[in-house]
Amino acid sequence: MPALSVIPDDLPPSIVESIITQIKDYQANHGSLIKVIGSETENSVLLHPIGVSVFPTLFPRKLFDTAIELQHIYNELYCKVAEDEEWLSTTTRALRKQEPLIDALWTVHEEVERRRRGNGTMRYPRQEVSAGVFRSDYMLHHHQDHDSDGDSDEKNWMENVSLKQVEFNAYSCAGGSHANKVVDMHRYLTRTNVYDFELEQTENRQTRNNICVNLSSLPRNRTIHGIASVLASAHAMYGPPKSCQHPTAVLMVVQPNNFNITDERPIEYALWNWEEGGCPIPTYRVEWQDVLQYTSLAETGELLFHPNQGRAGRKSVEVSVVYHRAGYETKEYADEVGMEIRIRLELSRAIKCPSILGHITTAKKVQQALVVPDVLERWLAPDRAGRIRETFFNTYPLDNSTPTGVRGRELATNLLAADNYILKPSLEGGGHNIYGSDIPRFLDGIPEAQWSAYILMERIRSPRDIYNVLMSSDGIVADEVVSELGIFGTCLWKSTNSRNGGSNCEVILNNVGGWSFKTKDALVDEMSVVKGYGCFDTPCLVDTSN
Amino acid sequence: MPALSVIPDDLPPSIVESIITQIKDYQANHGSLIKVIGSETENSVLLHPIGVSVFPTLFPRKLFDTAIELQHIYNELYCKVAEDEEWLSTTTRALRKQEPLIDALWTVHEEVERRRRGNGTMRYPRQEVSAGVFRSDYMLHHHQDHDSDGDSDEKNWMENVSLKQVEFNAYSCAGGSHANKVVDMHRYLTRTNVYDFELEQTENRQTRNNICVNLSSLPRNRTIHGIASVLASAHAMYGPPKSCQHPTAVLMVVQPNNFNITDERPIEYALWNWEEGGCPIPTYRVEWQDVLQYTSLAETGELLFHPNQGRAGRKSVEVSVVYHRAGYETKEYADEVGMEIRIRLELSRAIKCPSILGHITTAKKVQQALVVPDVLERWLAPDRAGRIRETFFNTYPLDNSTPTGVRGRELATNLLAADNYILKPSLEGGGHNIYGSDIPRFLDGIPEAQWSAYILMERIRSPRDIYNVLMSSDGIVADEVVSELGIFGTCLWKSTNSRNGGSNCEVILNNVGGWSFKTKDALVDEMSVVKGYGCFDTPCLVDTSN
Repeated sequence: MPALSVIPDDLPPSIVESIITQIKDYQANHGSLIKVIGSETENSVLLHPIGVSVFPTLFPRKLFDTAIELQHIYNELYCKVAEDEEWLSTTTRALRKQEPLIDALWTVHEEVERRRRGNGTMRYPRQEVSAGVFRSDYMLHHHQDHDSDGDSDEKNWMENVSLKQVEFNAYSCAGGSHANKVVDMHRYLTRTNVYDFELEQTENRQTRNNICVNLSSLPRNRTIHGIASVLASAHAMYGPPKSCQHPTAVLMVVQPNNFNITDERPIEYALWNWEEGGCPIPTYRVEWQDVLQYTSLAETGELLFHPNQGRAGRKSVEVSVVYHRAGYETKEYADEVGMEIRIRLELSRAIKCPSILGHITTAKKVQQALVVPDVLERWLAPDRAGRIRETFFNTYPLDNSTPTGVRGRELATNLLAADNYILKPSLEGGGHNIYGSDIPRFLDGIPEAQWSAYILMERIRSPRDIYNVLMSSDGIVADEVVSELGIFGTCLWKSTNSRNGGSNCEVILNNVGGWSFKTKDALVDEMSVVKGYGCFDTPCLVDTSN
Repeated sequence: MPALSVIPDDLPPSIVESIITQIKDYQANHGSLIKVIGSETENSVLLHPIGVSVFPTLFPRKLFDTAIELQHIYNELYCKVAEDEEWLSTTTRALRKQEPLIDALWTVHEEVERRRRGNGTMRYPRQEVSAGVFRSDYMLHHHQDHDSDGDSDEKNWMENVSLKQVEFNAYSCAGGSHANKVVDMHRYLTRTNVYDFELEQTENRQTRNNICVNLSSLPRNRTIHGIASVLASAHAMYGPPKSCQHPTAVLMVVQPNNFNITDERPIEYALWNWEEGGCPIPTYRVEWQDVLQYTSLAETGELLFHPNQGRAGRKSVEVSVVYHRAGYETKEYADEVGMEIRIRLELSRAIKCPSILGHITTAKKVQQALVVPDVLERWLAPDRAGRIRETFFNTYPLDNSTPTGVRGRELATNLLAADNYILKPSLEGGGHNIYGSDIPRFLDGIPEAQWSAYILMERIRSPRDIYNVLMSSDGIVADEVVSELGIFGTCLWKSTNSRNGGSNCEVILNNVGGWSFKTKDALVDEMSVVKGYGCFDTPCLVDTSN
């Protein structure tokens, strides 16, 4: 069977080389780069192009559109879960012993509540509005028996695949800027005829002529604008400065020495260059460990940022929105300073993107708990619940107190059964999963009490024969590939007290902020471009035959 | 005397460090980078930020405006000189023996004329229109005796300086894209309050409060658009394809392995993204050594470019404009292939940016010859000639057949006198000049017959005490600095046969395309950012007191 791709079989290597040259130069000119780790000095730094696909990769248009539509339901769901403290607590409470990050977040939450209600009066007013930048990641799952081949062709392929959710990220979602830049690049290359192969038609040519790259098959992607937009909306919603002294500004809390700065900075540039509404949105950055030094909490809860360590005369600002791009690693909460950093940010009346409870929703345990029958209906109308449930895949906890947990343990400890599963810890970012037959040995090596910090998820069986050429600083690979589509959801929601006294949620803004499309060699398990496991890519949308 | 700069004397180092961090990240995101020489592999390349000033450097607004105005006169002059073959030939003929590049260019011109008139018929139609991207470089010259100091202050400084032309470049002018990006950066940093120093006012503070950076003191710079614009105009002027078969396109002829690709590519991107007139302008690149392989000359003179080595089916284009960014080094014409490359390009009916005679005008010998009294009036009205003559500085040839040549030789061979001069070869690019007391020894070391390949130019005495912080991959220097302002002229002109049978010139388009502003440590002689001798910068325009 011929490979499914936009690359003609008889494309001369010289053309591929020429495209690669153009890609490297485009990346150099458009910040599609990452810093070489350890290369930064006071006065300079080395960068190299981030991994990208040389060609767009085929993807069914219908499923791309579906993923975009579903994001509105996922947004609603996660806004509501973030305001459902009771359910979140019940679901993740058991994890606190095994997972120090989850424990730290709950501790922050409890301490914030304690201080807020301190000495009887409501000392710090609660910020009722929260913001979210989510990313729901999908892969294509192939329903046909994967080993019976032969008659599968392109149409067949597209009719037998569905979207399955790999994970849902609710905190510090990265990759949006790079995804935006790479789509701009593939669209630029298309527009300049780089993929316009009018090759000789020969008798034995096997290329499918109906798959060609054109602008209408490459969707636009404005993720940088989308993320900036929700922060701008939150900034506007915060309103005038409460302190009546300092102008308001967005504060981006970042990790130090981030080699992936070209993903973070564009959000900041977009806000300073913001034209909708007629004026720029002041945006500052503070590194996580410097938060206590550079900020202060006013008596009435305003978070003040002092760009220059409070040096006299240097303008301070009142923070309207805290945009979290740090605080997702256990080590960041390892001492009292780390805890106090997050407590100060959370206690303030700034709008948090997201709130501490919003952060907790990103735990894999939450994702697993949502798969349990009838759970979604706690927040969603049945038809909406049904639609996103179609993207769920078999997922098990590893506790020993529930039937599904017991079943999960059985599967995970059986060498043969485990081969069809992935073991995922409740940590963020790629690179921590355990795959297939490695699972039983891995579980053997850790105390059984820690097992419940993991979830077991059935492996998605990607369609085969999708082909592309991937390039990165590690090399060039021409092979079968697997793609992952991440849809960025951007939301604002408001905490409302419902009649029965519990907290409830009003979704104020529910948008799709953009998307990312990442592709890796089919032989590699992990997907993390900055760690070298994949490439940013653009889907070449293909219509189904009917 | 306090230093003249926008930097408060008591600015804490931590603020400078914070600005430098922002600069590196801005550069990484906006292509203000250069490739690390030798680092490029098939799949990757290393880049680092190009040298830039940390702060804008003071410059008198009046002289900045003057340089912009004068460019229109310089444009007119060089368009006309490029069409004055008789004068050009007389002026540079003697150089052909000493300077192989000049000889190669004249040989190309003669061969093109011979082939064009070949076998009696006018086989290849002449393209009457030429385009030019020029750059006139100036430094500030301080009229006061440089060693008497003490009472000089800021006003004094500005009243005692004038613009002196360092050189005029008429071929393959680089640096425009970088200059554009760095000005965008300094303006961005200003807009985001990075230079907004509201520091403590103390008794002994010596900072001049009237020098502060704001957007109205940093002129906008759109050189990328300016250069693209003259190419777009030339493309439009070429009109529909003569071959009636292939669409027209701009062809950029480039050197291979250019580590300064971030200066070249933006012109190409700007043309493909061209929105004025409603459609993109197809633009292709060809490396110098590949010209004969990838192009062909039609019977009727059209230059056809075959993007894929003429592979069947791959679209060829008819070249409307040849934009030269190669062909300025002697070695490029060292063999018959090199000569044939330039002959083919020149012989074609494409509009050349610039023509071969336009190229010859860039020789330093031409610059020196224009300084001779009454010469400018050959092309310019006396008042216009007078205005640009004010920017000329003492310049001598080194021949032994004219009184100025004899004087030049006297000065150049006298150790004491030579100290006030620079010896410049007729080569392009920085790094080849001989300075001051090194001149006599250098001339001693080469045959006297080669002396006439050089011109001797009085050294410009830059105002002292201008201060800045410069950063590059070599390090950070905080010191007295010297700046060079280059104004980009963009022109179209037409060759017209005047009544007396000679060639004449009609200037069709005479614009300022932008500018570059480069700053170096005052202790360094050369100015070439890509060679590490300076930094791109933005002038902080200061008004004179009256």
